[in-house]
Amino acid sequence: MTDVVALRTFVEELVRAGMRAVVVCPGSRSTPLALALRAHPGLRVRVLLDERSAGFFALGLARASGRATGVLVTSGTAAANLLPAAVEATLGRVPLVLLTADRPPELRDRGAPQAIDQVGLFGTHAKWSVDLPLFDGTPETRRHVRSVAGRAVATALAGPAGAVHLNLPFREPLIPDGDLRPHEAMDGEPSRSFTDVLAGPRTLGASDLADLAMRLAAARRGLIVAGPQADPALPAALARLAEATGFPVLADPLSGCRCGPHDRSRVVARGDLLCRPGAWRDAHAPDLVVRFGAIPTSKPMLALLEDAAPDQLVVDGDGGYREPALLPTTFVHADAAITATALADAIATLPGVASQPAHAWLDGWLAADHAADVALRAWLAEVEGRGEAFEGAPFAYLGELLPDGAILWAGSSMPVRDLDAWLPGSARAIRPLANRGANGIDGVVSSALGAAAAGVGQVALVVGDLSFLHDLNALVAAKLHGLSATVVLVNNDGGGIFSFLPQAAADAPAVGLPAHYEELFGTPHGIDLGPIVEALGAVHRPVEAGGLRAALAESLVATGVNVLELRTQRARNVELHREAAAAVAVALAELRA
Amino acid sequence: MTDVVALRTFVEELVRAGMRAVVVCPGSRSTPLALALRAHPGLRVRVLLDERSAGFFALGLARASGRATGVLVTSGTAAANLLPAAVEATLGRVPLVLLTADRPPELRDRGAPQAIDQVGLFGTHAKWSVDLPLFDGTPETRRHVRSVAGRAVATALAGPAGAVHLNLPFREPLIPDGDLRPHEAMDGEPSRSFTDVLAGPRTLGASDLADLAMRLAAARRGLIVAGPQADPALPAALARLAEATGFPVLADPLSGCRCGPHDRSRVVARGDLLCRPGAWRDAHAPDLVVRFGAIPTSKPMLALLEDAAPDQLVVDGDGGYREPALLPTTFVHADAAITATALADAIATLPGVASQPAHAWLDGWLAADHAADVALRAWLAEVEGRGEAFEGAPFAYLGELLPDGAILWAGSSMPVRDLDAWLPGSARAIRPLANRGANGIDGVVSSALGAAAAGVGQVALVVGDLSFLHDLNALVAAKLHGLSATVVLVNNDGGGIFSFLPQAAADAPAVGLPAHYEELFGTPHGIDLGPIVEALGAVHRPVEAGGLRAALAESLVATGVNVLELRTQRARNVELHREAAAAVAVALAELRA
Repeated sequence: MTDVVALRTFVEELVRAGMRAVVVCPGSRSTPLALALRAHPGLRVRVLLDERSAGFFALGLARASGRATGVLVTSGTAAANLLPAAVEATLGRVPLVLLTADRPPELRDRGAPQAIDQVGLFGTHAKWSVDLPLFDGTPETRRHVRSVAGRAVATALAGPAGAVHLNLPFREPLIPDGDLRPHEAMDGEPSRSFTDVLAGPRTLGASDLADLAMRLAAARRGLIVAGPQADPALPAALARLAEATGFPVLADPLSGCRCGPHDRSRVVARGDLLCRPGAWRDAHAPDLVVRFGAIPTSKPMLALLEDAAPDQLVVDGDGGYREPALLPTTFVHADAAITATALADAIATLPGVASQPAHAWLDGWLAADHAADVALRAWLAEVEGRGEAFEGAPFAYLGELLPDGAILWAGSSMPVRDLDAWLPGSARAIRPLANRGANGIDGVVSSALGAAAAGVGQVALVVGDLSFLHDLNALVAAKLHGLSATVVLVNNDGGGIFSFLPQAAADAPAVGLPAHYEELFGTPHGIDLGPIVEALGAVHRPVEAGGLRAALAESLVATGVNVLELRTQRARNVELHREAAAAVAVALAELRA
Repeated sequence: MTDVVALRTFVEELVRAGMRAVVVCPGSRSTPLALALRAHPGLRVRVLLDERSAGFFALGLARASGRATGVLVTSGTAAANLLPAAVEATLGRVPLVLLTADRPPELRDRGAPQAIDQVGLFGTHAKWSVDLPLFDGTPETRRHVRSVAGRAVATALAGPAGAVHLNLPFREPLIPDGDLRPHEAMDGEPSRSFTDVLAGPRTLGASDLADLAMRLAAARRGLIVAGPQADPALPAALARLAEATGFPVLADPLSGCRCGPHDRSRVVARGDLLCRPGAWRDAHAPDLVVRFGAIPTSKPMLALLEDAAPDQLVVDGDGGYREPALLPTTFVHADAAITATALADAIATLPGVASQPAHAWLDGWLAADHAADVALRAWLAEVEGRGEAFEGAPFAYLGELLPDGAILWAGSSMPVRDLDAWLPGSARAIRPLANRGANGIDGVVSSALGAAAAGVGQVALVVGDLSFLHDLNALVAAKLHGLSATVVLVNNDGGGIFSFLPQAAADAPAVGLPAHYEELFGTPHGIDLGPIVEALGAVHRPVEAGGLRAALAESLVATGVNVLELRTQRARNVELHREAAAAVAVALAELRA
C-alpha cells in the first residue's frame, strides 16, 4: 500500500517549488500519483490521451508560462512516448518534469506485463534522472521523495532549463488508503519547502568586461545577433548595447527582440533577407559578431557568419557551446542581459574616439532593413492583388493583428522560416514561439495548444499539413479542455521545404533511379483535413488568399479552435519566395545606387 | 560527399542478410541512404509520414513476416519517435533494424539545427547499437559499414530477436554522385555476403533431459502453459508432450497452439475462463507447470499459478527469465520445440507406471474446456438474440470466418483479453498477433497495417477507440500504399479496461476527491471517428450487433481498409463479461455434479 503521507508531501513539494500545471495520461500503474496530483487544489490537472502529444502539450505550457510543468504517464511504452518532448525540452531549454509510473522492483525484468526498463529511459536527454523507491512509509523514504520533488522542479528550471525524469514504482493495491488532500499539519513533517534553492546569475569580472569592451569598441563592422532565447530582460539590454556600440541587432523572430515596447531603433527585422547572397550582403560582411541565444533560424545569416568569419563572441549565461559555424569563438558564460548592459556601460566610459560608434555601418543596415520592409510589403500587396495564396502572408497579417502578449507559434520547418522573413517589427509584445531546440515537425499543434492552456495570452499557430498530420490527435486536447486558438493550416499537400533543397533538383537518372522526388520527399497525401478537424471538435474554414486577413481577425476574437486552411502549391511557393527575395534585392540595389 | 560504393554495398549487404522491406520517413539528412535503399530492386521501400507510426508499421511487418525489417528516419526528434516501437520490438522479440541519419561529428553538440544526441538513443531497448563513421571512401570504412550491415540484420534476428540501432552520419552535399543501383562487380569488393552467421539451436544434454522427464512423469496434476511465442514448430511439439505426459496444453491465443492443423486434442482454448475464481478452479490446482513462451495473457491463469505455487519449469530457447509469478523455477534454456519433443520421447521410454499419464486429470480439463465452449456459445447466441452489442463477439465471429493463414491482430488492452476468452480453437491456421512485449496501446493500427503490408495473409484487427485515437494517423499508411484490412473499431468512448479495475470502485470520498473516475480513467472523448476514417481514405461503416457477422464476412472479401465501428457501453460491458463468466461457472458446476 502506497504511503499516503509520502504521496501528499511529494505533490505538496512540487507545488511549493512552483509547479502549477500537470498533464496526466490515463493509466493504471500511475493511479496513486494521478489521484494525489488531482487532489491538490494548487495544481491544474489536465488529462490527455496520447503521451507523445501530452509531452509536447506540457512543453508548450512550460514554454509559454516559464514554469516547470509536469507530465505523468503510466508504465511501459507510455513512458517511451515522452522521449521526443524530452529531447526538445532539454535542447530548447524548457523546464519539464517527466513523471513515469513503474512496476515495483520484483516485477522488473522478469517478463511481467507492461514492464519495461524505465531507469534512465531518456538517457542524455534528461538533465537529471532518479529512480525513486516504493513509497513505503518509512521516515527516510518520506524525506527522500519529498526532497527529490523539490529538487526536480529546481533542476528543471535551473539554466539551462530542461527535462528531468522521476521514475516512480508503485505496488498493488493502487488505490491509496487515506485522504490525499494537502493537510495543514503535514503529519509531523516540516510544513515549509523541504528543498529551497537560492541561485544568482553568473557575472563577468571587471577586467574581463573591460577587455571585451575594448574589443567591441575596436570593431568597425560589428553585428549583434539575437538568436532564439526566452529572457524578457534581454531585448532592452541589447538595445543599450546597440546604442553604445553602433552595431545593429539582427533579431531572430524567436529572440524576443523583434516585437515589444523596448527601444527597437537599432533592431533589424528583415535580417534573413538582407543576408541572402548578393552585392549588398557582400558589401556588409561583419568584422565582429556578438551572438546571444541559440543559433538564428536564418540559414543565410549563418552562412554570412561562416563566410565572413568575423571575430565572434557567444554570450550564454547557461554555459552552452552553441556554435555550429565552426569559427574561433570567445564563449562568455555570464548572464546575457547583465553582460550586455555592463558592456554598454563599459564602452560608454572608454576614452575618446574608441567609444564613437560607426554610424554609417549602423545606418546602412537600418536603411536596408527599411528598404527590405517596404519592398516586401509592396510585393505582398501585389500578390494580394493577384488573389494568390502565399505562405508568408499569415505572418505578415498576424504581425498586424495580434494584440499585446499574444503568442505566435510557428511550425518548425517552413513556417518558422516564413515567420523569420515575414513577421514585421512591432511595438506590441507579440511572443513568437517554436520548437527550435531540435526543430522537430512533431508535436507542433500539441505544443501550441499547451501554450494556449498556459492562459498567458491569445495563441495563433501557423503549421504545415505534414506537421499537422504528424500530430493529428492533438486537437483532442482542445476539445477535452475547452481551449481556444487560431490555427492557420498551410496545406501544400506534402513536404514544402524539400522544394527549396537540392533533393528537388536531384530527380534525375544520375543516381540510377527513376523519378522518385514526390515519393521520397514531396510525399503528397491528398488527405482532406477539414472533416478531421471538425470531428475533433474544432471549426474548419477553408480560406482564399483574399479572405485570410479578415478570417484571422474574426478568429482572434472567437473562442474555441478555429482552423483556417490555406491551400498552396509547393512548386509555386518556391517561385513566390524567390520573387519576394528578388524584390528585396532590387530595393537593396537601388539603395546602393 | 558520401561514398557511393559504401552506400551501395551497405544496402546490398542488408538485402543479402535477408532484409526485404524498409520503411522510410521523409527527411533531408537521410537522403543518401533513402536513395540507396530505393535504388535496390530487392527491397520494398514504403514511405510513411510519422516516425512513431512508421516504427510500429515496420514492427508489424517484421512480426508478420518473421524477417528483419528496416526503418529509416532523419536526424532529431524523428529518431526519438522510434523509441516506443524499439521497446516493443526488443521485449516482444521482433527483429527491427533502426536506421537513424545523423549530423556529421562537427555538427554534434554545438547547437546545430536538428542535431540531438543520437548515440545510444534507445539505451537498453536496442540489442545492439553502432554509431557509424562518415562514408568517407576509405577501404576500411567500406568494409566496416558493410560488415555492420550484415551483422545488424543477423543480430536483430538472433534469439531473442529485437531492435538494433545503426546511427549514420552524413555530411553535405546529400545527393550522392553516382549510380546507386547494385552492380555486378561490386567495385572490387567481394560479391558474396560479408558477414555470414551460422547458428544452431541450444539443446539439453541427455542427463538433464532424463531428469526432467522423471520430474514430469512424477507429476499427477501437470499443466503445459503455452504463452505468446512465434515458433511455428512449437504447437506440434507441445501436442506430443501433452500426449506423453497427459497434461493439457493451456493455449494462449498468441501461442500459435490454439488454431492450426496440428493435433489439438489436448489443447484447452478456454483456459482463461476455467481459471476464474470458483470451485472448479480450486479443485484443479496444478502440482507442476511447464511454461513455454511469454507469460500468458490471462490474469486468472497467472493468479492460479501464483496461488497453486506448483513445481515450475520455464522453457526458453533464447535464455530468458520471464517469470513474474515469483515462484521457484527451473529455467530451461534450450530450444522449446526440440526440448518438448525430446521430453516426450524420454517420457515414453520410462519404465512401467511412471510413464502412465493421469487420464482423469486431462479429461477433467478437456471436459471443462468443452463445457465452457458450449456455455459461451450459448450465452453469445442469447446476447445476439437480444440484439445487444458485445465486445467479445468480433473474436467469436472472426474465429469462424477467417481463412487459413489470416492474421488476427488484437489491441493490447481489452481486445487481447477478449481475444483470449472468445477466440475458439480451430483447425484453420489463424494467426493471432498483438503487441504484448510491452502491452502498449500505442501503434496498434500501424502495426496491423504493417502486418497487412507483409502480404502473408489477410489481416483483421480489433481495436478500441482510445488505441485508435492514439494512433490516429496510422491509416495514412493504407492510403499511401493501397493496403487492405478489416478493422473492428470497438468504441465505448473511453478506457474500457478501467471499468474492470479497482479504480472504478474508488470514485469515493475516501481519498478526499470528488467524483473523478470519468475524468482520470474513463476519459470519454465523444469524438465521432467515422468522418476521420473516411477522410483518411478508408471505408467507415457503423455496425449494429446483429449485422456484425455479415459485415465481417463482406469486408473480408473486399479490398481497402474497412472500419466496422461497433458501439458499446463501458459499464454494460463489465456486466456482460460477468454474465459470460457466470454462464461458464454454471456449466462447470453442472459438470462436477
